[in-house]
Amino acid sequence: MKPNVKIVKIGGNIINDKVLLNDVLNDFAYLEGPKILIHGGGKKATEVANLMGLEPKMINGRRVTDAKTLETVTMVYAGLLNKNIVAQLQSKQCNAIGLTGADANLIKAHQRIVNDIDYGFAGDIDQIESVVLGQFIQLNLVPVFCAITHNQQGQLLNTNADTIAAEIAAALAIQFQVELIYCFEKNGVLHSVLEDDSVIETIDGTKYLQLKKDKIIADGMLPKLENCFAALNKGVAKVLIGNPTIIKNRNQKYTTLTL
Amino acid sequence: MKPNVKIVKIGGNIINDKVLLNDVLNDFAYLEGPKILIHGGGKKATEVANLMGLEPKMINGRRVTDAKTLETVTMVYAGLLNKNIVAQLQSKQCNAIGLTGADANLIKAHQRIVNDIDYGFAGDIDQIESVVLGQFIQLNLVPVFCAITHNQQGQLLNTNADTIAAEIAAALAIQFQVELIYCFEKNGVLHSVLEDDSVIETIDGTKYLQLKKDKIIADGMLPKLENCFAALNKGVAKVLIGNPTIIKNRNQKYTTLTL
Repeated sequence: MKPNVKIVKIGGNIINDKVLLNDVLNDFAYLEGPKILIHGGGKKATEVANLMGLEPKMINGRRVTDAKTLETVTMVYAGLLNKNIVAQLQSKQCNAIGLTGADANLIKAHQRIVNDIDYGFAGDIDQIESVVLGQFIQLNLVPVFCAITHNQQGQLLNTNADTIAAEIAAALAIQFQVELIYCFEKNGVLHSVLEDDSVIETIDGTKYLQLKKDKIIADGMLPKLENCFAALNKGVAKVLIGNPTIIKNRNQKYTTLTL
Repeated sequence: MKPNVKIVKIGGNIINDKVLLNDVLNDFAYLEGPKILIHGGGKKATEVANLMGLEPKMINGRRVTDAKTLETVTMVYAGLLNKNIVAQLQSKQCNAIGLTGADANLIKAHQRIVNDIDYGFAGDIDQIESVVLGQFIQLNLVPVFCAITHNQQGQLLNTNADTIAAEIAAALAIQFQVELIYCFEKNGVLHSVLEDDSVIETIDGTKYLQLKKDKIIADGMLPKLENCFAALNKGVAKVLIGNPTIIKNRNQKYTTLTL
């Protein structure tokens, strides 16, 4: 029987709301057993970018990371947000350690290949150092990752936090029974995006294809679910999507994904 | 026989010079055996503070850390500088891990007590978690600390990097034979501040008192040397002060401190 590990991803909307973030970190701190937190960015990066006179550059809804933007997200994600989350978790008796993919070479990535579009310093993940990550867990440390990786040649890279969560989950599936929990502003994958209560409670591979065909799942939800199914295919035991109250209990509706 | 560990502190002037920083990180990466790097801030924090419209506030030559300044130094020290140093070391096959005192609760501190002067979110160190730090070294990781600690109640604190280096050195002296190396812009402690070559090659406790009395050691050098002697008194085997070339070899002049 493999030991359990829970991997929780929290998005920018949670980071943006101090009270909500504190509640979520409380729930996370009191989760029993080995666990890992992955956090997104939030509006602070945009605020700092504005102060620095940067114009956000988007192509097809994705941010282009030029050198100055990378500087900003490195400051905000790896500095301000990550270390404040770590300090808050420490105050809740949770022995957090803040990490980027460069630290201990934990997430090896490469700069996204330029085909039609140059996304700049955006990283695509090659490999997770799951042995070292497992050693941290054995030391009873709680890794807290921000969305920065590196290319092993000195270059930091801005990397999607959902993908980091899925890749870490997949890499740990050899050593651990992994539960991957995506928390965001909705109650789960919704049938109708305007009805908070229209949660689709289970989605398997076949249903996913149908929902995609029917355009019930679209836009930002698509890459999120692609990440989830990739993780399940690589041996992750369980993937849940819902609002952050699912960290603490499962009394409310949420979406469970299965193969 | 205790194993060796080398603790290297590099100051802001090294951080400010990209070519010099790269050279210093090369030398540090090729140092054999267990090692720890501690780095200061440099002008980038001032640059970002200016962009954010902050006026530096100094009392008696020491920076006052208000909430916005703490935000800035957390972004610059723990984010931008620390993670770029880690990525650069990784590119040189040095398995660096970037840390603040909040990570793994490694440096417990308290906000400086207000007597006459309120230094704001400045931290004074209470304790180093030397067991966990020793475990990282056993995993062949190379800890890289920036000058941020925490108070275990969720508050990050701006903390003098020289003091962090000395406290870490002292805390590890129980487990390790510690060599503490302070690198800065001068060739060592100088007899005459304007003569680069006037290095005082050895200073013991008695000589230190005399140099202090004669005002040969003054200003910024005083707290630096106080840190050094505190470390020696707590069992650190060797303390050196010089320009960063002493990381690689000892062919040039530098200052050795002894009890």
